[in-house]
Amino acid sequence: MTQMIQPFDPAALGPLPCFDDVKAAAARLQGLAVRTPLIESPALNDVVGGRVLMKAETLQRTGSFKFRGAFNRISQIPEQDRAGGVVAYSSGNHAQGVAAAAALLGLPAVIVMPSDAPAIKVDNTRGYGAEVVFYDRYNESREEIGSAIAAERKATLVKPYDDPGVIAGQGTCGLEIFEDASARQVALDSLLVCCGGGGLTAGCALALEALSPDTRLFAVEPDGYDDTRLSFEAGHPVPHGQAAPSICDALLSPMPGNITFAVNQPRVSGGLAVTDAEVKAAMRFAFRTLKLVVEPGGAVCLAAVLAGKIDVADRVTGLTLSGGNVDAELYRAVLAEDG
Amino acid sequence: MTQMIQPFDPAALGPLPCFDDVKAAAARLQGLAVRTPLIESPALNDVVGGRVLMKAETLQRTGSFKFRGAFNRISQIPEQDRAGGVVAYSSGNHAQGVAAAAALLGLPAVIVMPSDAPAIKVDNTRGYGAEVVFYDRYNESREEIGSAIAAERKATLVKPYDDPGVIAGQGTCGLEIFEDASARQVALDSLLVCCGGGGLTAGCALALEALSPDTRLFAVEPDGYDDTRLSFEAGHPVPHGQAAPSICDALLSPMPGNITFAVNQPRVSGGLAVTDAEVKAAMRFAFRTLKLVVEPGGAVCLAAVLAGKIDVADRVTGLTLSGGNVDAELYRAVLAEDG
Repeated sequence: MTQMIQPFDPAALGPLPCFDDVKAAAARLQGLAVRTPLIESPALNDVVGGRVLMKAETLQRTGSFKFRGAFNRISQIPEQDRAGGVVAYSSGNHAQGVAAAAALLGLPAVIVMPSDAPAIKVDNTRGYGAEVVFYDRYNESREEIGSAIAAERKATLVKPYDDPGVIAGQGTCGLEIFEDASARQVALDSLLVCCGGGGLTAGCALALEALSPDTRLFAVEPDGYDDTRLSFEAGHPVPHGQAAPSICDALLSPMPGNITFAVNQPRVSGGLAVTDAEVKAAMRFAFRTLKLVVEPGGAVCLAAVLAGKIDVADRVTGLTLSGGNVDAELYRAVLAEDG
Repeated sequence: MTQMIQPFDPAALGPLPCFDDVKAAAARLQGLAVRTPLIESPALNDVVGGRVLMKAETLQRTGSFKFRGAFNRISQIPEQDRAGGVVAYSSGNHAQGVAAAAALLGLPAVIVMPSDAPAIKVDNTRGYGAEVVFYDRYNESREEIGSAIAAERKATLVKPYDDPGVIAGQGTCGLEIFEDASARQVALDSLLVCCGGGGLTAGCALALEALSPDTRLFAVEPDGYDDTRLSFEAGHPVPHGQAAPSICDALLSPMPGNITFAVNQPRVSGGLAVTDAEVKAAMRFAFRTLKLVVEPGGAVCLAAVLAGKIDVADRVTGLTLSGGNVDAELYRAVLAEDG
């Protein structure tokens, strides 16, 4: 078992986000976030012998759910702090979410990205109007660079997940899942959520606890990067300790956040882990059968269902397809592996 | 100008389909066809300077709108004729639609397909339980083969577009576009429809005429295969006469149907044509920005918008993404052309 590397004291975290914060976020995001569809595929249902409802956050503004949390957080920055803008560190989806949200709100944004980040993600981030500052991911600390920029420019640091405003924003995804399932008179037996640092999971947990307490929630992570699952077992946040590469670039956070863990631990039924091979198979299924472009990290829940990591037969299972920002080169390679 | 090759007498066609037929089709398809989302992308809106609402029939059962018309037609076959099953000729999407609809209704199905049809379409057609009979598209007549099979087996021939029941079924796509746009309090200035033989166009024309008569309707075809546009000019159905290949395998019908033409001529504002290069660029845009897998023939309307074939600035434009059944090999090649 991996060791705990810092003290965890939930009482020291301050007020945790709650469902009212999710509802307030939904009001802020109205008309700005895309109301992404909850997609059902008769072909997928046939394959698994149950009903699967997929929240297509691939179709969200910036191509992932990250816009929700970023906009909700940035929109609450006090007027007197706005001139300094925002700073964030991210190699991908959070970067784009922050850049797009800041642009909509008229705040300058600086994104600290690794110098080896894929050109398309750098281009997209710049395309939303953000300034990109590179760092050497092997010799420099993005946290230190981000903090230095924040101090120098009086900018607000927008964390990728361990922030009540970010968590509440991601929770609107869970709120919509519930609303759209209810509109079809369907209750979810389970909801599977793509899990990196646990922000989307925590937001969905708040929404489901309030709206559908009988729905069991599962955090799905890449095999070897299942720090959330390990942390549930340990009873406090622990790192995964994984050094091997994973295709799921969006889900490689080293350990759960303190806030996300405190929200998730009492509300999440468990964690599931999927291999790169299972993720690639899910991406191909999404291409061939669902006609959806899903990035590796966005496909982990679909992978868990297709690989039988959870019994979905004769049940109603919700899942998130959390993002679709995959490079054409990688996508082509994944499709080419199809026999 | 291409010559007329057969007499066209609208009065001899019998009763044309009408909006009541579309509404009846919607009732038959309730709970069986996927209620596909009308997707709006802030990124696309920014690119074109207007609002674009996309009907994602890529997410329809069988991966294209064709299920709608096939099910509506087959479900109306009289009880005494059902044992003989159905026969259809199609290179792909109609084949899958007929196969899936027949399977749901418990009828045997034979599909006559060109021997060079995309593998994914052949595999899927068989996957829905249909028998596939191949023909040589350069030396054999699919109509003759289909008619022979129909006579031999006492099977009902389900035409791909020139049939009132098929047209009415496709019209449910237009009905839903109107309903979902209205739910957002949006009126469409224009609707662009992917056009092969004109069945989807005709169905949408009936729905829009009844529900939104001020919406201008455009049929979008591959460059060189714009027989519907040429027929509007000629005043009667004429073939395109094109021999050069096109990437849009779903839209290569030789000329409009008599019924589809009779429905479309008075209701459609005009025809647009797009090149293969424009279609490929649209497929890449759909991959990179929309995160949707769209087949060539399904991407012609998006291509028309992106290539500026119609002025959409400061307007609300609807369009169909009519199908997503593209082979991985072709898809990879299209993505690889991206610089």
